[in-house]
Amino acid sequence: MKVVIVGGVAGGASAAARIRRLDEHAQIVMIERSGYVSYANCGLPYYVGGVIVDRDELTLQTPESFWDRFRIDARVRQEVTAIDPEGKTVTVHVLDSGKVYTETYDKLILAPGAKPTVPALSGVDSERVFTLRTVEDTLRIRRFVEDQKPKTAVLAGGGFIGLEMAENLVEMGVSVTIVQRPKQLLAPLDADMASFVHAEMRRHGVALRLGETVTGFRQDGDSVLTLLEGSEPLHSDMVLLAIGVTPDTHLAKDAGLRLGIRGSIAVNERMETSVPDIYAVGDAVEVTHFVTGQKALISLAGPANKQGRIAADNICGGNSRFHGSQGSSVLKLFDLTAASTGINEKTAKAAGIAYEKVVLFPASHASYYPGAQSLTMKVLYEKETLRLLGAQIVGREGVDKRIDVLATAIRAGMTALELRELDLAYAPPYSSAKDPVNMAGFMIEDLESGKVHQFHWDEVDDLPRDGSAALLDVRTAWEYQRGHLDGFRNIPLDDLREHLDELDRSKPVYVNCQTGLRSYLACRLLTQYGFACAHLAGGYSFYQAVMKERLAQSPYPCGMEKL
Amino acid sequence: MKVVIVGGVAGGASAAARIRRLDEHAQIVMIERSGYVSYANCGLPYYVGGVIVDRDELTLQTPESFWDRFRIDARVRQEVTAIDPEGKTVTVHVLDSGKVYTETYDKLILAPGAKPTVPALSGVDSERVFTLRTVEDTLRIRRFVEDQKPKTAVLAGGGFIGLEMAENLVEMGVSVTIVQRPKQLLAPLDADMASFVHAEMRRHGVALRLGETVTGFRQDGDSVLTLLEGSEPLHSDMVLLAIGVTPDTHLAKDAGLRLGIRGSIAVNERMETSVPDIYAVGDAVEVTHFVTGQKALISLAGPANKQGRIAADNICGGNSRFHGSQGSSVLKLFDLTAASTGINEKTAKAAGIAYEKVVLFPASHASYYPGAQSLTMKVLYEKETLRLLGAQIVGREGVDKRIDVLATAIRAGMTALELRELDLAYAPPYSSAKDPVNMAGFMIEDLESGKVHQFHWDEVDDLPRDGSAALLDVRTAWEYQRGHLDGFRNIPLDDLREHLDELDRSKPVYVNCQTGLRSYLACRLLTQYGFACAHLAGGYSFYQAVMKERLAQSPYPCGMEKL
Repeated sequence: MKVVIVGGVAGGASAAARIRRLDEHAQIVMIERSGYVSYANCGLPYYVGGVIVDRDELTLQTPESFWDRFRIDARVRQEVTAIDPEGKTVTVHVLDSGKVYTETYDKLILAPGAKPTVPALSGVDSERVFTLRTVEDTLRIRRFVEDQKPKTAVLAGGGFIGLEMAENLVEMGVSVTIVQRPKQLLAPLDADMASFVHAEMRRHGVALRLGETVTGFRQDGDSVLTLLEGSEPLHSDMVLLAIGVTPDTHLAKDAGLRLGIRGSIAVNERMETSVPDIYAVGDAVEVTHFVTGQKALISLAGPANKQGRIAADNICGGNSRFHGSQGSSVLKLFDLTAASTGINEKTAKAAGIAYEKVVLFPASHASYYPGAQSLTMKVLYEKETLRLLGAQIVGREGVDKRIDVLATAIRAGMTALELRELDLAYAPPYSSAKDPVNMAGFMIEDLESGKVHQFHWDEVDDLPRDGSAALLDVRTAWEYQRGHLDGFRNIPLDDLREHLDELDRSKPVYVNCQTGLRSYLACRLLTQYGFACAHLAGGYSFYQAVMKERLAQSPYPCGMEKL
Repeated sequence: MKVVIVGGVAGGASAAARIRRLDEHAQIVMIERSGYVSYANCGLPYYVGGVIVDRDELTLQTPESFWDRFRIDARVRQEVTAIDPEGKTVTVHVLDSGKVYTETYDKLILAPGAKPTVPALSGVDSERVFTLRTVEDTLRIRRFVEDQKPKTAVLAGGGFIGLEMAENLVEMGVSVTIVQRPKQLLAPLDADMASFVHAEMRRHGVALRLGETVTGFRQDGDSVLTLLEGSEPLHSDMVLLAIGVTPDTHLAKDAGLRLGIRGSIAVNERMETSVPDIYAVGDAVEVTHFVTGQKALISLAGPANKQGRIAADNICGGNSRFHGSQGSSVLKLFDLTAASTGINEKTAKAAGIAYEKVVLFPASHASYYPGAQSLTMKVLYEKETLRLLGAQIVGREGVDKRIDVLATAIRAGMTALELRELDLAYAPPYSSAKDPVNMAGFMIEDLESGKVHQFHWDEVDDLPRDGSAALLDVRTAWEYQRGHLDGFRNIPLDDLREHLDELDRSKPVYVNCQTGLRSYLACRLLTQYGFACAHLAGGYSFYQAVMKERLAQSPYPCGMEKL
């Protein structure tokens, strides 16, 4: 059996090694357009920033090591330019010599990945406008940074790579501005959760120009102008385009393979394309979203590696299946970690899924043990079935742990109530006796059993302030004085029982506190004294974080028109 | 409704607060023998060591705060000495005044906890022999340490509290010796995994006297002698008894409640005892082990808190159920984290469960990103059904995350193969594209599909060394020269294909490498060339760690009789 693999990074390299493990006698040819195979895609920004010091660290394998260990014929700087599915051959272009040859295959795996989206804008080919995909791109940026010592950089786009690059450039002393059309960074998060990311970026001096459209670039001496629609252009020493990635599928398209959404390659669960003996894996393929069941593009290394393994199994006579991606992802941003799994509110709405949510601020570990940090967690579940749909967490410690626990619970098809029962490991340096994930389950139980009702930050402005409802802030007087919601009256929780007769049982009560815990207790109390009551999910902390961000983004001076 | 709660720490305090949230009108009396309620049991060793500086941090609530917020009548330094289930009263002894009174109840919750096991040994009541259970015990030890500045301490017992105390004493400059009858510390781990814990303790200067029996203590001037069976006594400035805990259930016993194993209180899933209107929660109750289905005692804060909540729900008319504990636990030991969930090999054997296991050494995060540390993981699964049974992990980073993911998978009833599909969040600072938990799943797949066979460290000595089998070490020549298994011949993996004709296909091949990865690859290769092959699980690393520990424990000088 002769297997040809197009693309030698995550999915392709995984497939190649797995095929060899399963079939010592297969002939395996892996063809990679760049000069490197099996490189650490996700590590590239950290090499630019000098966090990863040794360039060799970026390549997990070399063509030589692939040959020595696996007898995999890895050919770099060669590009497959055409597939003949009838004749079962590929046309290969040797980039350095210009030679072209034909390679036969019994099985073909396409692992071409996704390429940075480069919009057709004027000046996009300027030598100071970079994209980051390959090791070569990385070396080019690194060399530029070392030689030219840029003081300013514009990043067009705020996805994973863009934000990691921002961090790395800032750590090198470069002043960074992020410009993009979407009004929030990190699309896997909802806008409210992204507020925390925005704040962290600003805290580290990154300027955010959100909701701005780049119309082109212009070289201007030693700097480059980023032209904006309706705003003054931005001067900078360099520009990095990171507005997203596009499946790199012209080969598949030309060969007549069935395509999926946004030009991706359509595959079945066995990673088979529409053409016999051709498989496809990684960022180029359409997947089924594990939570929505809808077709999706999810460009992440985890699924790519798993898919490579699955394609290999099937090529070698097995029957492995890929049961979908749920988009679990995590990102380090300076001292912050932002992570998500499953779907967010935007996606739930788009998919027509009726959901409910809780927002909480648990401590990353026992609050009495040094170093505990507050997490901001949002957990979504399906209204009808209580099936877990997704979670988003930002914080400074323990974020990746909780997102992985929730990702596992989602994968297992757990209901939100089952989170209560998770038997997680507790010691003061690591967690609390009731882990944050347990807490989310407890909150959902109380919500679903009608023990408490909640309202959300985006409903605060519309609360009745005409005396037809009581608006109550149950924090301490000291907390209240430092800032509170407009129209809310302060009765500290511990004094509430003594002030009940000042409240009118015929009017609903809306309660707020700092994080949603005391307001929950107040609601339980008030409910039992005959009041209709709801409390603010996430409390003043969450409201304030979102509103601060709105203020920062406001086009009006100081945003006074809104607050 | 009037609820009396005996015990005001984890389970009792959780129940009290939950009852108030559910029933504003209930009368709640919480009676606690010590001077403190809702204290941070698991934080006590860290106060002794000065990691937790502020004494107030140890108490999450006070009787006053319980009253102010929850109208819970928390009475400290009062002991319930008898229950009259017929009359529905308890007899309460006020410790400071000596007064005795009777309190009626509609519902009674017993949350008495477990007390340190104090064996009936001579001298055990010496003022230099301490136990650690309450805040008072903590303050006593702390005061002793501050006043007497002990230079040496003997710890009798090596459970969680003992080891945490050892760390805290060492950090204060005290020279610590741990003495105990069991030959390993930390019973939730198997002996092989405990080797890493032993090594960490020794690395920090803790002397381990395992397999030794303490027969008594004797005050000797300003020091105390720990008397040992068949060994010289140990001199030290103080002794801490931490040989385990015993359910504190004389009250329940005297009241005629049905008891469970080892004197614990028997309860059903609703946390109801055998007597109507009496509930019990926490360390004093017998639980069903989630994995074995057998009755078990599991003294951990997580289950205690959950049980308190469940009892409260049921007292207030709900129907909540406790579906068993799986013993998830984690421990910080200097720079090491040791964690486990589900059952270990000892427990599986005792329960008659046919299991299989994998051992692996994955990196805590992408190896090319700075700071990656190697984890040692053991995952157990049921042979027949592939149901996950348990996991043990030791390492310096990311241990608690992986144990919680595995705990969640176990709770969800996942099979070991489903670990392959977990969609976990990856970025270089947090994990690898194939997370360690995924890797365990891949290994189990290959094992169960017969793609590879393994042997274990305890079988190495018994391998045929009479020429009837080939023993192969596939590491590099350099690694081999630094130390290798007796009788193993070195053929580096990358050279193996060239040396196949030197091997006899009629003889089985046993392969070893450093961690089990290259030997797996060698086995896949050899199998396909017609060899019967098995590889050493965990490789030379695991074997060496276990053997070093055996050597250290050997009663013979240098342990030469064994190696």
